[in-house]
Amino acid sequence: MTQLKTLQKLVSDFSNERDWTQFHNLKDLAIGLSTESNELLQYLRFKNEAECLAFMKANPEKIEDELADVFYYLLRIADLYGMDLEKGLRQKMVQNEAKYPADKVRGKNLKYDEYDQGD
Amino acid sequence: MTQLKTLQKLVSDFSNERDWTQFHNLKDLAIGLSTESNELLQYLRFKNEAECLAFMKANPEKIEDELADVFYYLLRIADLYGMDLEKGLRQKMVQNEAKYPADKVRGKNLKYDEYDQGD
Amino acid sequence: MTQLKTLQKLVSDFSNERDWTQFHNLKDLAIGLSTESNELLQYLRFKNEAECLAFMKANPEKIEDELADVFYYLLRIADLYGMDLEKGLRQKMVQNEAKYPADKVRGKNLKYDEYDQGD
Amino acid sequence: MTQLKTLQKLVSDFSNERDWTQFHNLKDLAIGLSTESNELLQYLRFKNEAECLAFMKANPEKIEDELADVFYYLLRIADLYGMDLEKGLRQKMVQNEAKYPADKVRGKNLKYDEYDQGD
Repeated sequence: MTQLKTLQKLVSDFSNERDWTQFHNLKDLAIGLSTESNELLQYLRFKNEAECLAFMKANPEKIEDELADVFYYLLRIADLYGMDLEKGLRQKMVQNEAKYPADKVRGKNLKYDEYDQGD
Repeated sequence: MTQLKTLQKLVSDFSNERDWTQFHNLKDLAIGLSTESNELLQYLRFKNEAECLAFMKANPEKIEDELADVFYYLLRIADLYGMDLEKGLRQKMVQNEAKYPADKVRGKNLKYDEYDQGD
Repeated sequence: MTQLKTLQKLVSDFSNERDWTQFHNLKDLAIGLSTESNELLQYLRFKNEAECLAFMKANPEKIEDELADVFYYLLRIADLYGMDLEKGLRQKMVQNEAKYPADKVRGKNLKYDEYDQGD
Repeated sequence: MTQLKTLQKLVSDFSNERDWTQFHNLKDLAIGLSTESNELLQYLRFKNEAECLAFMKANPEKIEDELADVFYYLLRIADLYGMDLEKGLRQKMVQNEAKYPADKVRGKNLKYDEYDQGD
């Protein structure tokens, strides 16, 4: 079993032992992704980059905790709906290679519709 | 190299080839987690559970695409700041076991501060 | 002074008295909108409609508190960047009237690109 | 009728003419607040402060459009559930005055639990 499938099984076993699968629909799990991402954002609000790094250095467990929560919901959705996270990511990266050719976008923080795509 | 480390390297190589690491600070990457989670939510807004499932069945690639985006940012943060996603998740699940004892919370969608913790 | 301008002044005076305007850039205030919206969402996660209503009835001040936080950031952005919230809303509603003709979309929870726009 | 009540009526009339109130439950409207806030955030992702201001100057209507969407959902929730936005904001500001005494927090971007509250 891959590392991701092993972790998916870990979170699913946890839910199944608690009979929680009945509450785990796609919308509420997606809310989980959003709310946990925003708990992370809340730590960083009104902090400049140096302050963000200082916060992370002083409180690494707070950052790791929110990332674990996001990961938990991601794994749970993948497991419940039979999605392959590695395959999805690899497909995305292939698309990103095409959308953002390295020689066109190097050093530019533009979206794919903001840089000159012609030549 | 573990599956997660391999995928972390994939997204980091992509950024490095584009000289994008200069833009990748914790706050903006956390914004990435939130915005991509909310693109997923946007597909589900005002849909009941049957409509969410029908949408996912008709457009699996849209759901997978947003999950891949969330995963991308999660891997990028972990790689940039040296966080171990598997270890973080396993620690979290140990905490969750303690916060949500199976025999106390079975079948209940309560938060850990909403069920009777006494005995 | 309109009601909205009066309230904008209230939140701006509060910030100015604390010399907080230096921290109030558009990105962090937008993070404020997102994080406070997600605190509201967190109360509703994994609750069905009846449970959401019961929660709101039992804890109206929690809902009002999060809405006030969202409103605070909205007023602050409008005031800092000279945006007219009433005018913006009225323009939006005119656009929505065109995008969602009442006789085409009545009783349908479709996005403007999902219903038959032909005739 | 106050300005806020007039605007609440505007958005509610729009929904009622389309028979959309059946879809407007608290959870989906809260998702609306979050998704529209995140559309705003998406414009600002990976931009530094000067780039954010330049973007706003070049595209004021994009920023106003997302703020109008957030305001729409806020007004809709207030109207559907009988909440008084002005009253809620004023109560919040009274609480904030107590939590953040001007002489203690002047010029500091700390949360209320991060500054010295003793004397």
